[in-house]
Amino acid sequence: MSPLFERDREALRADQLEQLQLERLQALLARLRRNVRRYRELLGDARVESLADLGRLPATTPENLVEAFPYGMFALPLREVIRLHSTVGPDGRQIVVGHTRNDLDQWGRLVARQLVAAGVTGNDVLQICFGGGFFGQALGYMRGAEVAGACVIPEDPFHVEYQLDLMKNYRATVLITTPSNARDLVEVIRARRMDPQALELRALVLSRPVGPEVREELETGLFARAFCGFGLPEILDPGLAVECPEHNLHVSEDHFLVETVAGELVVTTLAREAMPLLRYRTRVAAQLECVKCPCGRTGVVLRPGGRLDDRMTVNEVPLYRAQVEQFLAQTRIGRQPFALSVAGRTLELAVEVSEDIVGDKMGLLTDLKAVLESEFQARFGIVADLRFTSPSRKPA
Amino acid sequence: MSPLFERDREALRADQLEQLQLERLQALLARLRRNVRRYRELLGDARVESLADLGRLPATTPENLVEAFPYGMFALPLREVIRLHSTVGPDGRQIVVGHTRNDLDQWGRLVARQLVAAGVTGNDVLQICFGGGFFGQALGYMRGAEVAGACVIPEDPFHVEYQLDLMKNYRATVLITTPSNARDLVEVIRARRMDPQALELRALVLSRPVGPEVREELETGLFARAFCGFGLPEILDPGLAVECPEHNLHVSEDHFLVETVAGELVVTTLAREAMPLLRYRTRVAAQLECVKCPCGRTGVVLRPGGRLDDRMTVNEVPLYRAQVEQFLAQTRIGRQPFALSVAGRTLELAVEVSEDIVGDKMGLLTDLKAVLESEFQARFGIVADLRFTSPSRKPA
Repeated sequence: MSPLFERDREALRADQLEQLQLERLQALLARLRRNVRRYRELLGDARVESLADLGRLPATTPENLVEAFPYGMFALPLREVIRLHSTVGPDGRQIVVGHTRNDLDQWGRLVARQLVAAGVTGNDVLQICFGGGFFGQALGYMRGAEVAGACVIPEDPFHVEYQLDLMKNYRATVLITTPSNARDLVEVIRARRMDPQALELRALVLSRPVGPEVREELETGLFARAFCGFGLPEILDPGLAVECPEHNLHVSEDHFLVETVAGELVVTTLAREAMPLLRYRTRVAAQLECVKCPCGRTGVVLRPGGRLDDRMTVNEVPLYRAQVEQFLAQTRIGRQPFALSVAGRTLELAVEVSEDIVGDKMGLLTDLKAVLESEFQARFGIVADLRFTSPSRKPA
Repeated sequence: MSPLFERDREALRADQLEQLQLERLQALLARLRRNVRRYRELLGDARVESLADLGRLPATTPENLVEAFPYGMFALPLREVIRLHSTVGPDGRQIVVGHTRNDLDQWGRLVARQLVAAGVTGNDVLQICFGGGFFGQALGYMRGAEVAGACVIPEDPFHVEYQLDLMKNYRATVLITTPSNARDLVEVIRARRMDPQALELRALVLSRPVGPEVREELETGLFARAFCGFGLPEILDPGLAVECPEHNLHVSEDHFLVETVAGELVVTTLAREAMPLLRYRTRVAAQLECVKCPCGRTGVVLRPGGRLDDRMTVNEVPLYRAQVEQFLAQTRIGRQPFALSVAGRTLELAVEVSEDIVGDKMGLLTDLKAVLESEFQARFGIVADLRFTSPSRKPA
């Protein structure tokens, strides 16, 4: 059996877990009622006697988080909150996630569970390379590594060749990165005709779940065992679940009470202090499965699916159509109609321009294309490929 | 008198300090002799009876750190080291700095001294914006903020307009950033015809010392009191000294024994575990001044000057000529002669090309310019402006 970081928490028996969850849920309701106006109004005098009552409690949506921006969902005064992470919500509007000191400490322990499942010990040298723009996730993995006692190289060069040099120079044994960046590394290793076994890598921790084909490609290309993290930026990312050596993604059920409602993953945070959430509709499709796993972890197994809203992902970066709309409205393109599609790691953006511009002002369009693409990169960290189209003629 | 974070350490009497430094120096010598082969050989049976003996101890140079790469200067096994930061040394070669858990905890307290001197309390919301590529410094300030109990927004968008939006949305009260980025923010505020008093900023912590003119420009433009940090990436950056409200930069002398040798700042680390350094030649010009400061801090006042080696700084990023040389050698430019100069925030790079290329291959050169400039940005995070020149004719 592989080691468990918090065996007394990760291998709880069903009855122990149920008891713990019920107690924490009851305490949560009391805190929400006392400290968050929105929940006080929604909850009324609702009580829970057993976990079966959960279904009658009100849900929280991503829209609620956006409306409460910045501090309306906090259950403690800002004085107690020592960290603010932000993420993008529906319509491209901002969501802020607060953490107290206890929340951050707990985050470290939840991430350490994943790292220990991936075999990380105090002898490992961890390279965390997200390639920019993923500060929040990188910080989560750093905290987990510190708790696990491993040595962290926090350098985060954009350039994948440099990442490989770092890995060689420091003799990194574990790489934590996005699947896209891991694939870039595999390509550089191939292009250099380098034997991946010449690296000291043992394990690869990926920032999100990948399918078996990608996993195998990366495991072969980097000669390391791959493990996938799972998280939700509105709550914690990483840290919601642990992928064990059997490739089962076990939810940390002592901290997160999970349901599926019409195929959507719904999460209740049982122990978060700064921003506890009741029945949060994640907009992520998922299945939950009770598995008797040989790894010893008893947490329910999560099989995550795709997004249930119009969030796109371009080269690991989340993006909503509304964000592009707002961005274009602030530029010389104004409010022209446009079409979006994702091609590989590039966002293809086709903007309609009126006929008097097309044809005689090609130079202007070329300049505009360059300016917009570079602005896009700076704002979203995404490579966009901008094309101009002429307006479709409407039948008279 | 303004608050001090560790009064018993920051306001030591001369005799107390001397006693503490001597004890720590003796312990340091014992540790170095026991654990670092290089120092064992250099130290021989040298003993110190008083601080006056310091001058007879061997020095450590940046070249020594480069030669020991990666782990040769560590005084503890890698198992005890939980963080590796790297920086660039002479000839553009890499230097690695290791930290134990105690080193990181102490780093947090040293940075908290600076933050408390800048008036930071648990009620403050700190925005840390370094604009990419300064992960190490950002992590140091985050750790200090956590120790001081302040709330941190770790978002680090490249785009300065977004930084300003964050500052407004989260009602940040303290901004921690580089002088260049602060100046960009001032420009955006002016361009938007915004009143800086509409922000909630009270204090501005700058990543390095600036002169009185820049300080005033930034204080006026952001309507906040400015404080400058000081550090050396080979040891700790930030964390070596604290700028008090009187604008005196007090060395944290309980941790760092400082001298000047021929105008060069020389630092001995008194309490670092992973990578203690004896009489480290910093290649930074400096003056030390004993000042009876009304702030109550008794640490010697440091007046840092410029670099004493050929390190350049382009838009806050350190750069050696040798790095550019190595970079060019790997490109299609090969080993052509080149000239470097810094213009504002841009590195101007003039590469000599032979006559057969100049004239008839303008298109090729244009492409090459674009490719090299973008590679430069990716590798160094520096904007380069590449020009091609023809070789100077040598007299026959």
